[in-house]
Amino acid sequence: MTNADIGSPPSDRTRVKRLAPRGRYDRETIHAILDEAVYCHVGFNLDGRPAVIPTAHWREGDNILIHGHAKAGMLLALRDGADCCVTVTLLDGLVLARTAFHHSVNYRSVVAYGQMTEITDPDAKSASLKYFMDHITPGRWGAAKPPDDQELKATMVLSMPLDEASAKIRSGPPSDDAEDMDRDVWAGVVPSRLVFSEPETSPDMHLEKPVPDHARHLIRD
Amino acid sequence: MTNADIGSPPSDRTRVKRLAPRGRYDRETIHAILDEAVYCHVGFNLDGRPAVIPTAHWREGDNILIHGHAKAGMLLALRDGADCCVTVTLLDGLVLARTAFHHSVNYRSVVAYGQMTEITDPDAKSASLKYFMDHITPGRWGAAKPPDDQELKATMVLSMPLDEASAKIRSGPPSDDAEDMDRDVWAGVVPSRLVFSEPETSPDMHLEKPVPDHARHLIRD
Repeated sequence: MTNADIGSPPSDRTRVKRLAPRGRYDRETIHAILDEAVYCHVGFNLDGRPAVIPTAHWREGDNILIHGHAKAGMLLALRDGADCCVTVTLLDGLVLARTAFHHSVNYRSVVAYGQMTEITDPDAKSASLKYFMDHITPGRWGAAKPPDDQELKATMVLSMPLDEASAKIRSGPPSDDAEDMDRDVWAGVVPSRLVFSEPETSPDMHLEKPVPDHARHLIRD
Repeated sequence: MTNADIGSPPSDRTRVKRLAPRGRYDRETIHAILDEAVYCHVGFNLDGRPAVIPTAHWREGDNILIHGHAKAGMLLALRDGADCCVTVTLLDGLVLARTAFHHSVNYRSVVAYGQMTEITDPDAKSASLKYFMDHITPGRWGAAKPPDDQELKATMVLSMPLDEASAKIRSGPPSDDAEDMDRDVWAGVVPSRLVFSEPETSPDMHLEKPVPDHARHLIRD
């Protein structure tokens, strides 16, 4: 059994306090949620006040990574060591209980605290961007033109270890109280998920190219 | 033309700086994004460090609202006047360009800064929870058991005016450079959206009740 299987014990910040049984701390659960989601929300302070910005993310080993334009305000702040919180959420459904009070949502989320470090070595940066692109659309990196030196210089890649991360999960049907079970009202779950659908070829494509398999990779039945 | 049509001018914080043409400040655009999404990410400081928590939200007029257990740490901090940032993101697609550098995502997001105020009056609180539930599942409030005094007391409702809010939108096909148009690679968009599907009746339902229309309200073709 590796350390990844065991996971690390929660810190005071990552320990799930509300509805504690929903908290999960094992690497497998945390990694699976990060790998399924394609974007996260990054929280940091801008002039001492909280800001939350959505951005694509990926995972390599026990690190979460983001990228963007090298002059973007958020990336500059994070590169300079700003504390941040990266949160990833997958909405799995609406939970319609017999009482208004027990209505809920099914979801899987990860909250990770820490600081980002810039990947500056051009080869390491390029390898990481390839890893990201091929995770979402396997083989795309080999099909598209790779970044030249100038484009690579204009792109910042940041990485944060998942040292202080936890997952929170709610799943399954509503949890109504015993005295409400005979109420004359339907109870159940409306499932939800992010769906990718048939790719749309760019109207400015003047070469005859079929939609490649990698563009359909995220489509599920 | 009302003030809502015009919108308010962006503040220094809400003015979109990276890719400025993607910024939108009119109420109609901001409200539509908030109304389509069912959850947001709330950023605030916990012991001086940023935290980002996902939660369901709704909009009433030019305010965004959230709710939760009256003892939840985030709600207590927000009730006590913590600065916060509420961000809502809808992922509309992956943009596969001819060059790695021009890959992007289509999305619609809203970022709103401010402070929350608690709705303490029980009738106003109940009316707001009804508004929320009937926005997601129209008519559900009348079907489920409404909260009793104790449940209402255990629920905190917080509201924040959208005084400092902006939207950011990317849509459409990839924007490749002229010199890359003849590259032998497919370019286009993989559309994505959050999909709600056929409701699943709770296994502990022992009354024969068909799935109500309101549970199918969010299902789109």
